[in-house]
Amino acid sequence: MRQPSDAGPAVTTRRARNKERARERVYASAMTLISQKGYADTSVAEIAEHADIARGTFFNYFPRKEALVNAWAEQRRARLMCRLGSRPQRGLGVAEALRACMSDLGDLNEEDPALSMAMLTAWVQAGRPLDEESHLGAIFSGIVAAGRARGEVSSAVDPGLVGEVLRDLYLGALYRWIRQFPAVREYRPLGADLQADLQQALDLLLNGVAAPAGPHHDPR
Amino acid sequence: MRQPSDAGPAVTTRRARNKERARERVYASAMTLISQKGYADTSVAEIAEHADIARGTFFNYFPRKEALVNAWAEQRRARLMCRLGSRPQRGLGVAEALRACMSDLGDLNEEDPALSMAMLTAWVQAGRPLDEESHLGAIFSGIVAAGRARGEVSSAVDPGLVGEVLRDLYLGALYRWIRQFPAVREYRPLGADLQADLQQALDLLLNGVAAPAGPHHDPR
Repeated sequence: MRQPSDAGPAVTTRRARNKERARERVYASAMTLISQKGYADTSVAEIAEHADIARGTFFNYFPRKEALVNAWAEQRRARLMCRLGSRPQRGLGVAEALRACMSDLGDLNEEDPALSMAMLTAWVQAGRPLDEESHLGAIFSGIVAAGRARGEVSSAVDPGLVGEVLRDLYLGALYRWIRQFPAVREYRPLGADLQADLQQALDLLLNGVAAPAGPHHDPR
Repeated sequence: MRQPSDAGPAVTTRRARNKERARERVYASAMTLISQKGYADTSVAEIAEHADIARGTFFNYFPRKEALVNAWAEQRRARLMCRLGSRPQRGLGVAEALRACMSDLGDLNEEDPALSMAMLTAWVQAGRPLDEESHLGAIFSGIVAAGRARGEVSSAVDPGLVGEVLRDLYLGALYRWIRQFPAVREYRPLGADLQADLQQALDLLLNGVAAPAGPHHDPR
């Protein structure tokens, strides 16, 4: 039974399903503990105990503790795609589509603030802002490219760069949101308004900062 | 001689100067090694050996290895202020002043790319994007507030937010610049153009992404 080919397809499939279920249980235990104690203060041993497995078994599912960070980022992406996909995109202008995407991102973070803060901190400390490919940048730039094709975006604008810049704005707003809380695991709504910050930053990029030409300026 | 007040002022001052000189030598050794080997792969023992001090003496100057990251960030800020101060600000429009500031930031990074990449990586991994007060945001917002007072910036714009957003754009461009190199300590100009990315991102924010009104669409 060492070789997967020794087992019939049904057995292999059931084994794969069981492994996937066990992995999900370990992941859920990890997220529960991390949202309570923070990432750095949660050990693999504690996660294993919570999931009722031996410590060494954890590594069958996640080769290193840091692999939890990747799993979280992947799950985030999947949830964002699901939300974006559930909304009819047809007929939305570029501004509305970007606004909706920022709003979905805000919701994803606000649904479970303690977990978002703990995992985003771990994501930053793992150096991901520097080495991760920007899936979010690609999503934004797709929206901008479609808007440009419809003439809603200046033809001088590079959709790829706008996508990257929108991702920079999103991350910056998230960091400011997190920075307002005394400790990552304590979520207290102190007037921190992630959604408002996201929409304001987006408006700046859509409309620009420069005043229209005029002697003293004439705000449109 | 345990109490500083036991020594005369001249002695205290000389001692303080000597300590500052020694600290600078340790700092210089650290930066030399880190730019060659990266931050994570440079140990306190190696820095001490390079600076010709005992390992324990390192901690007289820097309480933890991570304090080097703070010292680097402070030195960065001081060098930026020095550059900004050496240019006459009077008569510069807001766009020119922001362009000049971005250009100075680009220069600071490009002067010693290997060190910038290694220390910025350490800065991110220490979680600083999340917990550091944004001095750069304050510099940008000061420029924007002055421009707004002159009517060059739309009065609907919040200079504080623009400052934060400009800092987000700067950090995003820096990360993209670093991401292009195979390893942090290898700087090879592969067409990575930090200055161009910074100026383009700034142009986006100044002018906005939305196309001027035309026959094809009616914004809002």
